[in-house]
Amino acid sequence: MRTFDVGVLGATGVVGQQFVARLARHPWFRPSWLAASERSEGKAYDVVVPWRLAVPIPDLAIGRTVEPCTPGRGPKVVFSALDASVAGDIEQAFAAAGHFVISNARNFRMDPLVPLLIPEVNADHLAVLPEQQRTKGWRGAIVTNPNCSTVVLAMSLAPLRQFDLRTALVSTMQAVSGAGYPGVPSLDILGNVVPFIAGEEEKIESETLKILGKQAGRTPHPAVISAHTNRVPVVDGHLITVSVDLGTQPAISDIIAALQTFRGRPQELDLPSAPPAPIIVTTESNRPQPRLDADRGDGMAVTVGRVRSCKATHAKFVALGHNTVRGAAGAAILNAELMAADGIFD
Amino acid sequence: MRTFDVGVLGATGVVGQQFVARLARHPWFRPSWLAASERSEGKAYDVVVPWRLAVPIPDLAIGRTVEPCTPGRGPKVVFSALDASVAGDIEQAFAAAGHFVISNARNFRMDPLVPLLIPEVNADHLAVLPEQQRTKGWRGAIVTNPNCSTVVLAMSLAPLRQFDLRTALVSTMQAVSGAGYPGVPSLDILGNVVPFIAGEEEKIESETLKILGKQAGRTPHPAVISAHTNRVPVVDGHLITVSVDLGTQPAISDIIAALQTFRGRPQELDLPSAPPAPIIVTTESNRPQPRLDADRGDGMAVTVGRVRSCKATHAKFVALGHNTVRGAAGAAILNAELMAADGIFD
Amino acid sequence: MRTFDVGVLGATGVVGQQFVARLARHPWFRPSWLAASERSEGKAYDVVVPWRLAVPIPDLAIGRTVEPCTPGRGPKVVFSALDASVAGDIEQAFAAAGHFVISNARNFRMDPLVPLLIPEVNADHLAVLPEQQRTKGWRGAIVTNPNCSTVVLAMSLAPLRQFDLRTALVSTMQAVSGAGYPGVPSLDILGNVVPFIAGEEEKIESETLKILGKQAGRTPHPAVISAHTNRVPVVDGHLITVSVDLGTQPAISDIIAALQTFRGRPQELDLPSAPPAPIIVTTESNRPQPRLDADRGDGMAVTVGRVRSCKATHAKFVALGHNTVRGAAGAAILNAELMAADGIFD
Amino acid sequence: MRTFDVGVLGATGVVGQQFVARLARHPWFRPSWLAASERSEGKAYDVVVPWRLAVPIPDLAIGRTVEPCTPGRGPKVVFSALDASVAGDIEQAFAAAGHFVISNARNFRMDPLVPLLIPEVNADHLAVLPEQQRTKGWRGAIVTNPNCSTVVLAMSLAPLRQFDLRTALVSTMQAVSGAGYPGVPSLDILGNVVPFIAGEEEKIESETLKILGKQAGRTPHPAVISAHTNRVPVVDGHLITVSVDLGTQPAISDIIAALQTFRGRPQELDLPSAPPAPIIVTTESNRPQPRLDADRGDGMAVTVGRVRSCKATHAKFVALGHNTVRGAAGAAILNAELMAADGIFD
Repeated sequence: MRTFDVGVLGATGVVGQQFVARLARHPWFRPSWLAASERSEGKAYDVVVPWRLAVPIPDLAIGRTVEPCTPGRGPKVVFSALDASVAGDIEQAFAAAGHFVISNARNFRMDPLVPLLIPEVNADHLAVLPEQQRTKGWRGAIVTNPNCSTVVLAMSLAPLRQFDLRTALVSTMQAVSGAGYPGVPSLDILGNVVPFIAGEEEKIESETLKILGKQAGRTPHPAVISAHTNRVPVVDGHLITVSVDLGTQPAISDIIAALQTFRGRPQELDLPSAPPAPIIVTTESNRPQPRLDADRGDGMAVTVGRVRSCKATHAKFVALGHNTVRGAAGAAILNAELMAADGIFD
Repeated sequence: MRTFDVGVLGATGVVGQQFVARLARHPWFRPSWLAASERSEGKAYDVVVPWRLAVPIPDLAIGRTVEPCTPGRGPKVVFSALDASVAGDIEQAFAAAGHFVISNARNFRMDPLVPLLIPEVNADHLAVLPEQQRTKGWRGAIVTNPNCSTVVLAMSLAPLRQFDLRTALVSTMQAVSGAGYPGVPSLDILGNVVPFIAGEEEKIESETLKILGKQAGRTPHPAVISAHTNRVPVVDGHLITVSVDLGTQPAISDIIAALQTFRGRPQELDLPSAPPAPIIVTTESNRPQPRLDADRGDGMAVTVGRVRSCKATHAKFVALGHNTVRGAAGAAILNAELMAADGIFD
Repeated sequence: MRTFDVGVLGATGVVGQQFVARLARHPWFRPSWLAASERSEGKAYDVVVPWRLAVPIPDLAIGRTVEPCTPGRGPKVVFSALDASVAGDIEQAFAAAGHFVISNARNFRMDPLVPLLIPEVNADHLAVLPEQQRTKGWRGAIVTNPNCSTVVLAMSLAPLRQFDLRTALVSTMQAVSGAGYPGVPSLDILGNVVPFIAGEEEKIESETLKILGKQAGRTPHPAVISAHTNRVPVVDGHLITVSVDLGTQPAISDIIAALQTFRGRPQELDLPSAPPAPIIVTTESNRPQPRLDADRGDGMAVTVGRVRSCKATHAKFVALGHNTVRGAAGAAILNAELMAADGIFD
Repeated sequence: MRTFDVGVLGATGVVGQQFVARLARHPWFRPSWLAASERSEGKAYDVVVPWRLAVPIPDLAIGRTVEPCTPGRGPKVVFSALDASVAGDIEQAFAAAGHFVISNARNFRMDPLVPLLIPEVNADHLAVLPEQQRTKGWRGAIVTNPNCSTVVLAMSLAPLRQFDLRTALVSTMQAVSGAGYPGVPSLDILGNVVPFIAGEEEKIESETLKILGKQAGRTPHPAVISAHTNRVPVVDGHLITVSVDLGTQPAISDIIAALQTFRGRPQELDLPSAPPAPIIVTTESNRPQPRLDADRGDGMAVTVGRVRSCKATHAKFVALGHNTVRGAAGAAILNAELMAADGIFD
């Protein structure tokens, strides 16, 4: 694969930092253009960024001048870590100006012409891009990745579509890093659980069905999802309990086999960020656990455990994913890898 | 009400300490007899107890000699905080010897002749006691309270029986104090969630239906309960997300009204430990929370919040209760209060 | 004692809420006037306040209209929970207009004419008030309480002045509630320690010597204090390790006796918020601990433990106090109680 | 360097697991012999080990039979992760039988003939080994590494010996992983601090002076160390506040330079586990922090921050190290690397 210069919109925020850190060691992409709000514009990245990752600021970003988020400037491929309050207008302007915007923001996720992409699950949804460009009049395009808890759920449900997935009842236990920085006040969450995350249940219930659906999600998967969302005092890793009704009533061993053998195009293409197995099934009785399992597959694998029968639905299990890797920057980068491999950026 | 001397079996453990602390300030009961294992026998209570509560050891227990768990000795009414590994034999021997054993242990909970009592929910289950005494050949009796997460669920479901409660899917987030001391190692739970608690799901699924059932639970409530149980880094307070199928399809406002107006015999009798309202319904979007709400009603109220409709079942909500008060010592004491008020100890 | 109507400036903030909650159950003071910023003015207190305490909003505050912070209005005695960014001008204007301002803000603490008061330690510092009024031209006055970690240190050092206290080296472990709300982001402190709190070391090093000094602190105590300050993932309770050089080289038992028998005017006068013993000395090897001991003396006692000799200085120990009670609202209320008992408000 | 087969005594415990994990990817050492107590003997390592690390069990250990701790068996070089309750007899027997025992246990640390080794600090202490062998009559030898908090302190003090280090007053904030597994009960430490760790202050005060001393520590460094030790709710990383008296009164910039430029034989020899700089000096005002900095230098670097002047001593700073890497398994492995490089194993 040839290498691509790429840009990052919103490069100084928490998700932006993750893009910079991950892209700096990427074999294909070179983050040569870092853009942020006016406040940072024109200053050195390492001077203005409130860096919060345990890894140091990459050399590549040190001394690099922060650019304004001006469409038409910067590389053809830009990752967007913009806040939803500004992402709509800016991403659209960049797409119109010919950029491929690989976005982590929620603004266009439910747009019927925008792929809400998990490369292992719905790589075919990219087929809507020509229509997106035609209808919107864009020379570029926008591709989005799901909300950080949705991606964990959708990946664990994808292999169950074959069993006629009808219902999923889920209850999440979500890490504080999902709320950004400063995010959740410590007084709210130390030794506590907050049984509410604004807008999160709606995203899980709608995004998941688009992702699992057909025709780029315009025909949502015909199932019902119902979510309880909770914030817990965990740093990284969203854990979700899931109860599913499956029309074909498969044996538990068949469900486990379907999860374990699940593979997608990233594995076929051996994309750089693709975990060998997108779903790891644990056999220990008390796993997955955020602190022990969130980093599996370099943070890109979803770990599923405790697959068992359910008295009220057909089966139940627990799923875990790294919310800031598979649920944010890592997800977008995998999306871009698939697009690069498919020649979309050529 | 006259006052009763009462005993505590297993008085030096964590639950035993809670019995001692709460009974020391009780208007009816005087904890004059504290029994524990041979290791502590004959020594002063305050010397042997590894006291772990924020309140100091009550004066009444200071210098008091720890007794052996010998049936026939001690007061007629004894509370049992014994570990399940020994509770079976000892409680049975005490009941045979004429004691009323008010137990927090799990050993006899599912015995069809032993009430699994929540005074607000199934005070009528005490009617099985004469049959218990006759069949077992006991001069005394055993009455149990539910497991610490079951009581929160059962109380929140009791007012919904009128709506033809058919299914409840629950996912718990349980505090570490529920595992006793030393209990959960800090390395397992700091910044983490453990999606498994041994035996807990089975207890929730079976105990709840006995509690909600008829004929002292021998006819379990005809519903299906399915539970996911999780341990979270919280000190006190079990939080449970609940999704319910209700045959009569009531309006959400009717569900809320049923929860808010729910009262039982403890409220009628104005028992000392009875909270004014057994169930408090919060209207704030992000409550109940363990740290802010577990102590409501002096730890004896269950707080329910976020009552709303559910896409997959009929309705869903969040329930919270104090696991070491309403879920252990406080529950047993309320049981004894009801029995005292009903003249069972006379 | 007669009762006084009192006001609260900044009544909707975290410290303001504590004032309202504690004053609502006070035997002498009636919080009849609640003032806050323009944003809240004219609205009902319970509607605008982001109430964050575990106790409910007092009945007295429900429906009460929030007033503007206008000097001359409201009762003679006002408590100030204002943020330091605005406290300077507002408190001064209130004092000029004839109010007695009992402030928790830092702005006037080091003013040589303003008492920095801990009633058990330096009740005599109130004698500076006439000079304050004369020099400043105020009809009212300002009295302050120390910073939340300073008060713990100063109380534990006060009984050691008799031993010729020369040096104190301290290292704090401070709770997140000391930083207000939203305060410390959870991403910064979950499973972490932050070895820095802006401005805190300076406050401890200077305020303590003023408090322990003579002539209302204008002659600071002739000792040297050096502080390390750290934020730890604890909700309430500041813990401080202290090493002291004492010129008279007292026996450890004499130090313990001095701490245990320490009493002040609040105890003599039996003020409502006065703990029976301002300093509780624990004998257990692993105490004091924030979660178990911060509430001692209804949050108004300082607990000292592990008093022992030190190889590098003369002695060392650990001290703990409740930062939002003895370190904020409770401290100010005790100050006002002393002033009321001394007839200053008459 | 040629490769060595090595053994691990106590291979199934928490520290033993760390030895296995780190040795499995070591360029020189091959952990071919894993020994543990009778309970595990003869069974497959992966079956009996309660593996608690986030990294998986190394392939090399899977299916490997656990050996008994029998002297004379196994490789010449053995690492000891034995509990102190049994380490004394077993390590001595192995040394007598000709093994080089690289121990993490505390039993022989203060033995005047046993090096208490930090390769950067006192590599010359290995010179005592011939005398150890002669006096004890051992064909092998024992070499120890310091206690997990001592190593952090001793490394940060080593470069200050040149300034006539006279006194160090320290207060630690130690992670729960330092107490092993199950170790600290979560009920003790969640949202809490415990200001006591049994035996820890004595170890810090004595071990440090031996390490910094001459003649293999038989002439301890002529300084006074006084420690407060505290347990905090952090998973990995011991943080220590340090105040030092330095006879030569160096400028703060000279202290910083001495720390930054400090190097030792591991850096000269470029040993596999040697961090490029043993001490990293941070310039940010709020660092080091356990969660962000404990892993620096692959867990082998000590991070020092906030170096500043002190009103009571000459200077003060904060030091951080990874307690289970630089404070345990990693320390022992670096000791063995130095010994291998020095030809001691030949």
